[in-house]
Amino acid sequence: MKIGFIGLGIMGSRMAANLQKHGHSLVVFNRTRAKAQPLLDKGATFAESPAKVAEHADVLITMLAQPDAVAQVALRANGFLNHLKPNAIWIDCSSVNPSFSKKMATAAAAEQVRFLDAPVTGSAPTAAEAKLVFWVGGDAADVEAIRPLLLDMGNKIVHAGGNGMGTSIKMVINLLLGTGMAAFAEGMALGEGLGLSRKTLFDSLLGMPAVPPFLTGKRDKIEKGDYDAEFPLRWMQKDMHLASVSAYESGVAMPLANAAKELYRLAMREGHAGQDFSAIYDYLTNTYDLGDD
Amino acid sequence: MKIGFIGLGIMGSRMAANLQKHGHSLVVFNRTRAKAQPLLDKGATFAESPAKVAEHADVLITMLAQPDAVAQVALRANGFLNHLKPNAIWIDCSSVNPSFSKKMATAAAAEQVRFLDAPVTGSAPTAAEAKLVFWVGGDAADVEAIRPLLLDMGNKIVHAGGNGMGTSIKMVINLLLGTGMAAFAEGMALGEGLGLSRKTLFDSLLGMPAVPPFLTGKRDKIEKGDYDAEFPLRWMQKDMHLASVSAYESGVAMPLANAAKELYRLAMREGHAGQDFSAIYDYLTNTYDLGDD
Amino acid sequence: MKIGFIGLGIMGSRMAANLQKHGHSLVVFNRTRAKAQPLLDKGATFAESPAKVAEHADVLITMLAQPDAVAQVALRANGFLNHLKPNAIWIDCSSVNPSFSKKMATAAAAEQVRFLDAPVTGSAPTAAEAKLVFWVGGDAADVEAIRPLLLDMGNKIVHAGGNGMGTSIKMVINLLLGTGMAAFAEGMALGEGLGLSRKTLFDSLLGMPAVPPFLTGKRDKIEKGDYDAEFPLRWMQKDMHLASVSAYESGVAMPLANAAKELYRLAMREGHAGQDFSAIYDYLTNTYDLGDD
Amino acid sequence: MKIGFIGLGIMGSRMAANLQKHGHSLVVFNRTRAKAQPLLDKGATFAESPAKVAEHADVLITMLAQPDAVAQVALRANGFLNHLKPNAIWIDCSSVNPSFSKKMATAAAAEQVRFLDAPVTGSAPTAAEAKLVFWVGGDAADVEAIRPLLLDMGNKIVHAGGNGMGTSIKMVINLLLGTGMAAFAEGMALGEGLGLSRKTLFDSLLGMPAVPPFLTGKRDKIEKGDYDAEFPLRWMQKDMHLASVSAYESGVAMPLANAAKELYRLAMREGHAGQDFSAIYDYLTNTYDLGDD
Repeated sequence: MKIGFIGLGIMGSRMAANLQKHGHSLVVFNRTRAKAQPLLDKGATFAESPAKVAEHADVLITMLAQPDAVAQVALRANGFLNHLKPNAIWIDCSSVNPSFSKKMATAAAAEQVRFLDAPVTGSAPTAAEAKLVFWVGGDAADVEAIRPLLLDMGNKIVHAGGNGMGTSIKMVINLLLGTGMAAFAEGMALGEGLGLSRKTLFDSLLGMPAVPPFLTGKRDKIEKGDYDAEFPLRWMQKDMHLASVSAYESGVAMPLANAAKELYRLAMREGHAGQDFSAIYDYLTNTYDLGDD
Repeated sequence: MKIGFIGLGIMGSRMAANLQKHGHSLVVFNRTRAKAQPLLDKGATFAESPAKVAEHADVLITMLAQPDAVAQVALRANGFLNHLKPNAIWIDCSSVNPSFSKKMATAAAAEQVRFLDAPVTGSAPTAAEAKLVFWVGGDAADVEAIRPLLLDMGNKIVHAGGNGMGTSIKMVINLLLGTGMAAFAEGMALGEGLGLSRKTLFDSLLGMPAVPPFLTGKRDKIEKGDYDAEFPLRWMQKDMHLASVSAYESGVAMPLANAAKELYRLAMREGHAGQDFSAIYDYLTNTYDLGDD
Repeated sequence: MKIGFIGLGIMGSRMAANLQKHGHSLVVFNRTRAKAQPLLDKGATFAESPAKVAEHADVLITMLAQPDAVAQVALRANGFLNHLKPNAIWIDCSSVNPSFSKKMATAAAAEQVRFLDAPVTGSAPTAAEAKLVFWVGGDAADVEAIRPLLLDMGNKIVHAGGNGMGTSIKMVINLLLGTGMAAFAEGMALGEGLGLSRKTLFDSLLGMPAVPPFLTGKRDKIEKGDYDAEFPLRWMQKDMHLASVSAYESGVAMPLANAAKELYRLAMREGHAGQDFSAIYDYLTNTYDLGDD
Repeated sequence: MKIGFIGLGIMGSRMAANLQKHGHSLVVFNRTRAKAQPLLDKGATFAESPAKVAEHADVLITMLAQPDAVAQVALRANGFLNHLKPNAIWIDCSSVNPSFSKKMATAAAAEQVRFLDAPVTGSAPTAAEAKLVFWVGGDAADVEAIRPLLLDMGNKIVHAGGNGMGTSIKMVINLLLGTGMAAFAEGMALGEGLGLSRKTLFDSLLGMPAVPPFLTGKRDKIEKGDYDAEFPLRWMQKDMHLASVSAYESGVAMPLANAAKELYRLAMREGHAGQDFSAIYDYLTNTYDLGDD
């Protein structure tokens, strides 16, 4: 079985390397060819276009930053979709919107291609260690067909429902990260306002049932005031915006999420856009003027 | 050493029983005397007033529902505070405000009584099993003096700082529970709106780094639609109000917490006041009219 | 000069009638032909398609409910845009988004058609009395060219800037109506909560500098509890959503508007979607359960 | 009839001067005696304490900045309340809370003093011109008794209900000013984000039915960027906090008001506390970093 892989960024390169490690034969494409070199050195083939990837692939995986980037390699001139063999499987691991995934599913069906949306949670290290979680939307039989492949890159596969459902659950998770981070920052700000030390707050709160576990990983950033981005604040704000649009379309009310979306926006306007989204803490606690009434 | 105990409700009765189990001699007071009977059967003495408790106690513990109730037994006619021996210790385990704790500390100091605010986190079962967490504010030497006593009722003692700091951290924790519950309910509502099943959402989200662990304990309530109160929604709304007032007084901004406070209020107005605060999920997902534009 | 008019709904029919009254020769199109009859009786010509309207028109006016409806009559099969004479003027009075207006301007320019976005504020009675306000975006010379025509339908013409600026100011106005209504309802709810009568509140507040004048027109609805829609709540919620998306795209923070958007959504979920948007008052003041803590 | 007047600040001094102009005999008290000089020059008597004011007064008026200041002159050592003659009338024009007014009413009744809460709306110039509006809570007969007196200082008297109702309506008005200002600033920010000029926005929006009339008076401040305080932003934030506490106590939900309260707080933290509350516009539109995603 030949696997096509398009998108060799921070995550994609590590995922592809794990496939190679498990003996899969890869044909790859990336806008910047240099990023493919480590894979080529170990036997992967570089294709001159997305379409050329499709010609050789039984399974094609995309791991790109934006819906636009996915649409471009799939649908535009030299796109892969109408070059895939009938019955081939396309797995899109990119972080996109549910409605975009559904559009891609429809486009794939028109070409007799089986489509799965399969975004991941995890980071560069977990990608390298093949410990990603895959949230998969699509036909159950297709999910079973590719499960071994995904397990070469991750350690948990959740079949969330039909097409778009993998992307949907990823959207919910990012929403919870965004509101969870902001709510925790408010709690810390209140605690410090009441006279508690930052150290006491961290020691007391992290690991408690009330606190999302991911926040343990943010302590160091906050204590050092070093907000080098793991996940930039402006991307989080964008994800909250997209979730808010989806909520509107679904008839759902989300007052907290909308409040968080606007809070992140205010923080962006004060210079935190490119920092890690945990910098919302910095925004809420750095005081320039407390008033004096 | 004789221990006075005032307030034998759901939590207090279990805490006092654990003290008795460890061999402490108790003198108790409760508005409803009947609730003291199990302790009296095992050798405790009932005092006719808070003042009478004070006369015999080296350490006096209060575990009451409201600041007003604490003020009444401590300060009003037949209150205990001016009947305690010099150098006695008063431990207030009630859930009150930081500013109230500081007032009690001042009042105690005037009577040469050592004061500790020591609210707990935990539930009736964890109280029974002596697995409470105590969040203690006060003098370090006093905390050390009573640490063994607290360990007869709990398994974790956090000395958070001076008087009011125990109460402060409890306030932050309840705030995080309140925003965490509401944010999770919004995420569930969005997920269901996008077409995910409730089961898939619970299976996927609970235990994830993005999700506060306490929510695992709410799954059953939500799935059964049985919102019998562990912690009533209206109490949570009150705690969020008190946190919001403290934030105002401290010059802290909390847009999410205020949005959550108002959301809980709207839910109260629709009949959820007496239900468990996880009923905010019910409020956000029960649809009467989605509109049709 | 021959004028084409597409869209003979509540507003459009009154606007077209005023043009006729001032002696203009009309060729009209409407999905439901019957609505054109009063105009036909007075000499207007009915065209069998939008394209046919274009063949005879020097100026073409559209007054439709949705961007989609505008796009359909302008751009799709038998659409008017590529049938207009070079140098003809298209005035779109429909309530659409700024970005849609800009797209239409580009499409028109490609056909050498001059485009103006010119949404209105006013109601059915003000349309009938030719007292509409036109908010116009486009080239200054074009605005001057059609000013007399607009003054046959309205009494105030504001040239807000280039294409999309008319639509932009309309969006801001609807935003202010939406937040203004909800903020006033909160003020009324607080006043009643404090013990003031509804009558005293209305008598005192309406006409005050703090209160938007449009609210005077809502008193009767609120006092009668008759929320027959002048402007349905769900349309207001949609407008606030669109404004919120535009704010996101422009990098603007609007915490109040987003809070209002979610409040209207909650009201929609409780059965107020089809009522006038002033029913947000009803939602905030009808109490089912105040709790009893 | 002898009138006592306590509190000769910006507003009080102008109000007292108008009483004098209408021939009333005044006995006055002020913390800073110098401020009384212009009144003394025209025949008023200075009393050495609030109690001394009471001895000579049939009607006593207080115009002070804070509830605490009122409580001090009324109730503490040398306070006036227990020195007033039976059946005397105390009119409190200070801006206080409804619950404080009710407490004062009770305290007054215990001394057989008739109490009216009568806060005003207006500014220094309107106070000088005797064009204030009085919002009065108290007994109808008492209101009639003092109506001529109030008309010497203002031109509109609204009897809003029993004690506390005057203060209540003042609270609602300040709430509407606070949310109205913030909502307008958001609308301006959106308009500018969409490409409209500040001038076009002001020209178009001010005077419209959607826009509270008081905003016309803020245009100059905003255009000049000169936020010298008529009403400081931090006082507005305090008023919104007090309204939010009253809403909590009354079981009322106010999501917009709470969002505005937090927005003003964020602006305070960025240096706008002492500026006019219209500086919320500056906070929302001054951009340091728009992000670049």
